[in-house]
Amino acid sequence: MYCNRLKAKVINPKPKIKIKKISPSVSYVNADNGIGFVGADIGIKQAIKNAKKTGIGLVAVKKSGHYGLSSFYAEQAVKNKLMVFCFTNAPAALAPYGAKKSLFGTNPICFGVPTGKVPFIFDGSTSIINRGHIRRAEKLGLKIPYGVALNKHGKMTTNAKEALMGTQLPIAGFKGSGLAWMVDILSGVLTGCSHGGKTKDPFDDFTGPQNIGHLFITINPKIFIGSRFIKEMKKNINRVKKLPKAKGFSNILYPGERKNKIYKKNLNKDIRIPAKILKEMENLNVI
Amino acid sequence: MYCNRLKAKVINPKPKIKIKKISPSVSYVNADNGIGFVGADIGIKQAIKNAKKTGIGLVAVKKSGHYGLSSFYAEQAVKNKLMVFCFTNAPAALAPYGAKKSLFGTNPICFGVPTGKVPFIFDGSTSIINRGHIRRAEKLGLKIPYGVALNKHGKMTTNAKEALMGTQLPIAGFKGSGLAWMVDILSGVLTGCSHGGKTKDPFDDFTGPQNIGHLFITINPKIFIGSRFIKEMKKNINRVKKLPKAKGFSNILYPGERKNKIYKKNLNKDIRIPAKILKEMENLNVI
Repeated sequence: MYCNRLKAKVINPKPKIKIKKISPSVSYVNADNGIGFVGADIGIKQAIKNAKKTGIGLVAVKKSGHYGLSSFYAEQAVKNKLMVFCFTNAPAALAPYGAKKSLFGTNPICFGVPTGKVPFIFDGSTSIINRGHIRRAEKLGLKIPYGVALNKHGKMTTNAKEALMGTQLPIAGFKGSGLAWMVDILSGVLTGCSHGGKTKDPFDDFTGPQNIGHLFITINPKIFIGSRFIKEMKKNINRVKKLPKAKGFSNILYPGERKNKIYKKNLNKDIRIPAKILKEMENLNVI
Repeated sequence: MYCNRLKAKVINPKPKIKIKKISPSVSYVNADNGIGFVGADIGIKQAIKNAKKTGIGLVAVKKSGHYGLSSFYAEQAVKNKLMVFCFTNAPAALAPYGAKKSLFGTNPICFGVPTGKVPFIFDGSTSIINRGHIRRAEKLGLKIPYGVALNKHGKMTTNAKEALMGTQLPIAGFKGSGLAWMVDILSGVLTGCSHGGKTKDPFDDFTGPQNIGHLFITINPKIFIGSRFIKEMKKNINRVKKLPKAKGFSNILYPGERKNKIYKKNLNKDIRIPAKILKEMENLNVI
């Protein structure tokens, strides 16, 4: 997708990225339609600087693109001992509550906080499952779970292709729809980027740059209670972990803990790539 | 409840509330165990001042109590043309994902934004239904919906009393549990207040003050794109409202719109109070 967009000249391969200082806490990054990862990376680094200086940072990134996982940026802030929110918008995939057509993206809410150990990083889309899962299922010819998506006629479907052409369902009906709307406002309206269903799908729409917006809010967690923060955070996690377990659970994990375990376990292993995806990569001459 | 706590001297009737300035954007309010409404009101007013001056405000309130509806405070910020997050913790009512005992409160996420018309105010608990609904059902002898709460043995229940003694279920399983945990950290750990299930239930636990924390984040929505913000916000809402409607819907409402309609409709009407609750009020000598 990234290669196709570079070829089609809807991603700028040599962006001139500018950082505008609005106040000691607030900065505005113009990513100049470069690849999303680059502008977002500059944005989170600026948000980290601002919070270190003033206790709180607010950084918007405009004219950006698909930036991968929010948790990648959250992790940078947490490693710098900051609390962080990351918001980004995304192409239409989710029907607002009361509508039968997609408009919001899967609009994730990402929140990170230092624990003194493995970072607490919550990164959840406001759709029941991630769009990436459906794309992977489509590529590999797998079914998707029942109850997570509708086809273009508004009927429930387990066919990944039909789901991509239809609409995904938000978590918890009106609540998930409201949270997706909140993310659209924070990352799209506030930042001066595409919003309200106007974000171009990076896979299907090559008529121009995506104009995606990102918003990072960084907070020094010691700002109110100093170094007591990490002590209290450890207490907090221990209290949850000591609770009696529900049937089928031997342990209660906090957000980010499972991914960190998998990461460490897989760090020195080979990566298995499905043959179909390997062939696509070979054709791109990237491996 | 408030009267009982005042009588039991676990709410301070004459708090000396102090505001500590940490930076031009950040303030820390000590509510001195007064009634929650008072400390929270001082907190949001300070957060409004800070954002008006610097573009962003961050205010924590410590040693506070149950503060009613988050949207009451969000509305104040929105009427001052600010975007706002309100977070508060609450007594244990929700089991973390993987546990069979309550620990998190129903921990609402509240987000408000000016629209140029009726405020956009999302105020959703991370539990499937609000605890207030269950308390009301218990008082009036009504059933609660199936699938929203477990009894103390971990079995699904529609009995309100059993639900109050058991645990409520979070929206969307792991995701709702993660969001509730996020709110516990923001309003409890960061603010230096009770957290991790230690917030006293205001109805049942008179052994001391609740020590609830609130966190307000206020943002000037014009900080990046100036007065274009309200224009884009109107476009955003119009795009959603123009979508084809799902079956059973004649209109798509944004968060806060329905409540505002009901408010206006009821403004000049009498308030109907169930006989049982009227009697309780008479016994308190408050009417």
